[in-house]
Amino acid sequence: MRQSNFFMPTLKEAPADAVAESHKIMIRGGYIRQVTAGVYSYLPLGYRVLRKAERIIEEEMERINVPEMIMPHLLPATLWQESGRYYKYGDEMFKLKDRHGRDSLLGPTHEETFTEIIAKNLKSYKQMPLALYQIQTKFRDENRPRFGLLRGREFVMLDGYSFAATREQLDKQFDDQKAAYKRIFKRAGVTVHPVIADSGTMGGKNSTEFQAPAAIGEDTIATNEKGSYAANLEMAKSIDTFKQEPEELKSMEKIATPGCETIDQLTEFLNVPATRIVKSILYMADDQKILVLIRADKQINEVKLGHLLDANEVREATADELVSVTGSQKGGVGPVDADWADKIIADETVKGLYNVVVGANETGYQFQNANLERDFKVDEFADIRTANEGEPDPVDHLPLQFTTSIEVGHIFKLGTYYTETMGADFLDQNGKTQPVIMGSYGIGVTRMLSAAVEQNLTEHGVAWPKEIAPFSLHLIQMKMNDEDQTKLAEKLEAEFSEKYDVLYDDRKERAGVKFADADLVGAPLRITIGKKAADGIVEVKRPTDDKAVEMSVDDLAAFVAKELD
Amino acid sequence: MRQSNFFMPTLKEAPADAVAESHKIMIRGGYIRQVTAGVYSYLPLGYRVLRKAERIIEEEMERINVPEMIMPHLLPATLWQESGRYYKYGDEMFKLKDRHGRDSLLGPTHEETFTEIIAKNLKSYKQMPLALYQIQTKFRDENRPRFGLLRGREFVMLDGYSFAATREQLDKQFDDQKAAYKRIFKRAGVTVHPVIADSGTMGGKNSTEFQAPAAIGEDTIATNEKGSYAANLEMAKSIDTFKQEPEELKSMEKIATPGCETIDQLTEFLNVPATRIVKSILYMADDQKILVLIRADKQINEVKLGHLLDANEVREATADELVSVTGSQKGGVGPVDADWADKIIADETVKGLYNVVVGANETGYQFQNANLERDFKVDEFADIRTANEGEPDPVDHLPLQFTTSIEVGHIFKLGTYYTETMGADFLDQNGKTQPVIMGSYGIGVTRMLSAAVEQNLTEHGVAWPKEIAPFSLHLIQMKMNDEDQTKLAEKLEAEFSEKYDVLYDDRKERAGVKFADADLVGAPLRITIGKKAADGIVEVKRPTDDKAVEMSVDDLAAFVAKELD
Repeated sequence: MRQSNFFMPTLKEAPADAVAESHKIMIRGGYIRQVTAGVYSYLPLGYRVLRKAERIIEEEMERINVPEMIMPHLLPATLWQESGRYYKYGDEMFKLKDRHGRDSLLGPTHEETFTEIIAKNLKSYKQMPLALYQIQTKFRDENRPRFGLLRGREFVMLDGYSFAATREQLDKQFDDQKAAYKRIFKRAGVTVHPVIADSGTMGGKNSTEFQAPAAIGEDTIATNEKGSYAANLEMAKSIDTFKQEPEELKSMEKIATPGCETIDQLTEFLNVPATRIVKSILYMADDQKILVLIRADKQINEVKLGHLLDANEVREATADELVSVTGSQKGGVGPVDADWADKIIADETVKGLYNVVVGANETGYQFQNANLERDFKVDEFADIRTANEGEPDPVDHLPLQFTTSIEVGHIFKLGTYYTETMGADFLDQNGKTQPVIMGSYGIGVTRMLSAAVEQNLTEHGVAWPKEIAPFSLHLIQMKMNDEDQTKLAEKLEAEFSEKYDVLYDDRKERAGVKFADADLVGAPLRITIGKKAADGIVEVKRPTDDKAVEMSVDDLAAFVAKELD
Repeated sequence: MRQSNFFMPTLKEAPADAVAESHKIMIRGGYIRQVTAGVYSYLPLGYRVLRKAERIIEEEMERINVPEMIMPHLLPATLWQESGRYYKYGDEMFKLKDRHGRDSLLGPTHEETFTEIIAKNLKSYKQMPLALYQIQTKFRDENRPRFGLLRGREFVMLDGYSFAATREQLDKQFDDQKAAYKRIFKRAGVTVHPVIADSGTMGGKNSTEFQAPAAIGEDTIATNEKGSYAANLEMAKSIDTFKQEPEELKSMEKIATPGCETIDQLTEFLNVPATRIVKSILYMADDQKILVLIRADKQINEVKLGHLLDANEVREATADELVSVTGSQKGGVGPVDADWADKIIADETVKGLYNVVVGANETGYQFQNANLERDFKVDEFADIRTANEGEPDPVDHLPLQFTTSIEVGHIFKLGTYYTETMGADFLDQNGKTQPVIMGSYGIGVTRMLSAAVEQNLTEHGVAWPKEIAPFSLHLIQMKMNDEDQTKLAEKLEAEFSEKYDVLYDDRKERAGVKFADADLVGAPLRITIGKKAADGIVEVKRPTDDKAVEMSVDDLAAFVAKELD
């Protein structure tokens, strides 16, 4: 491809709203342009990267015998009303009416449409195991789109679905997909950790996220140095409970703690460490009032709490609810005589504490020297706390390490939630009707490209991983009116184009402009044809090299093959 | 690909609403499934055909050095308000509001977004000629979606745009695209006529449609047997004006024609041929009242009339407008003393008529023996009639032949409509600001697939053109529990998969089921491995062959190469 024909508008400066490095480079390099908030066009350079990533996916899916298809973007609301997600999805779903007033939506994901087609066309255990996937544009109306392709409102996703007659078939499908995903990320040059993950609103268990460590990442993962444990922080088990030496139980006293609403204020006012305070928070789980206790130096992990409660909606009580239920404002709520609570749940850190401070259910008052069993009861203990960095991991008891990261993939065993709701049954070997068992698999394709850039930044641009680089080889001719240079450049273009994607910078631009643009193109190999062209000498440089080195054209073919094959 | 792994739900019967043969076959063969009116999912078989068509386009666009990119589906209304099309497009545009209440739309086409990106990034004549294209899902809320992929509400289109500094550059770009389009349709196995076409709401001239003859087509094209003339009927020139022998002018008389509202009623009542009656129809062109005259055996062609009037909106007057403007109901309107008309336009067929019947501007009355110039005046004569089959064509005066056809592509020289409206200027060689000159190019990709099926029907299915067939070779094993058959089938699968897309029917199904499905798959070559497998004999059949013929496996490789390469 000749650069003079290739629409690649580069910029010296990134726009002010670009925070993520990948966002800056993709805008500056002319990979993408924003059309409206969180919605981008992929210019030729960006489109090439996207297509290469898609091709890797297609090859790896073919390798595990999963055929590709594509569902529509525009979906009828009826399907989503059937599954109930039409109401649950909230503002993130783009909804519209067609000319006849029928409710429609833009697909944020496609469990419903895949379940429906299976419900209509798959009747027997003989037709399984079966899996399908698509690479498709999805729509989610993010409240605050940001970081370029990392959190957009229109983005490209691979979403796959598997259908099984037995749990064993599902396990095999899940393992095949997991292996394929690892190969996809490896080939795309994105380092990932497969971590234990929450399944969110999907309603499934046994879920693995693929997290790509990156400074800009919005997730945190907890790993150990041995690599034997890796979990999304919101799912990371905490086994460190901190045992207190047994103490004599003192008598409980009510004390005034005026103006203390936070734990910090309380520790200062009472001169007591947070480890001797039990924090009490009222949650509403559907219609149940749940009082949740935790040692005050720890944070409640709402994902773990949600799994424990298994309710449709779990949320902290509002200020009004708090007063009307407990009689106290924030800071004063506690477990003593809390008969108004339908259930009291405590984090394991509350076990084995003596003479602690708890709220007195009266604004501005606490009880001192409260003790479990004697002064308050707990219905259930569980790990509902957020793990801390340095805690022992649950496998090898090595210190947990935290890393910010980008979620680039997510696979999980969905089970029968959708198939039961939507009536996707099959006849098993005994002629008995069973719901199909589903798995769900996804990669954020455009997000993966951002992750690849974040992980492969250079001083002035990017060093694209070989298999997704927009071009493999960038030929740069220094002076377009130098005949020796033109002759050599065209010869090299013809020679290497047979095997590699070559971009040939044939523009009448200054060397500085060409090199700056080349840093943004980030091809794995750059060959500069300059002053010594007549002597058969060029310069070669990888994006990660500090300097270019001279090389005879006689050695070039072997060197290029070694670098790119 | 093993058919047992391949999701391809076939049906014995097409749904009742499927009228077009291509629609029936695509549903019955498990290529597509409707998700909601005019919106389809492409199952693995259909997706393969779609991807192959896209690959042909990609190769041919690369050949003319046009890079691929992709614009978003979700577009801000502001861009379309700027061009004015937000208001003009009407109910066919899907409109929605995002969570912040901002007006958005789903792109029915992308002139605005491409013009905008050029306006922002292209500054100098040095950056042109430039062209770009995308293959993308488009959305148009058709009032009556029908015929499967032929008229859907969500469909795949190639849309390309060219940008030029001079008319000469545009002409070259247009010719390159035209040649590429011809190659694309040829490779996709779709027979097309490039015809003179209207540019519709696009606001351009010099427009060519690619029309694929097919019984189900909604367009009509007019051609001659020599191939020297081809036009969309709505643009076909009519040169046949029918001259009357001169007659003595008789005196004009008003006569009662009670109850005559149509030409048929009038010819019967008066016993006068339609060729001696002048029909008068009132049109509203924006705010102008235009009286249009035509010889009564001809039909007014509103496309031609629209081009002549060059108004934003041209429409026939309503019944109420007719009475209030002319004083007469339908049937009685005429050109005599029609001072209320801002302009009287007549088709050329009205020239050279003598003693004709015209409306008397009074319900139920006509004038007999009216004569041009003496009794009524015409401001402008033009060809505003629909040509009739058998008329002489305007090039070689051969009889026009009419064919129903499917519009599969459309290219035209758009000019500066969008670039002037949206401020896409460049500096020319003299440093003068000029609007960029655009061309616009489109192929209905999913519609092209329907056309391919319509043109390649067989008795029980389809004979896919080689380059877009979902599979090149269909291996059918008759008995899955016959070891000789399995051995031979697996050997042939391994051998031919290296070079061709092979579908191997390894299902435990009856032969009748396998053959019926194979007719719907329509691979260019079917090889059946049956009873004589042990003797190295198979049966081969093309979809267009009446019967399969036996062949030794020794001859197979050469035969397959001859057929498929």
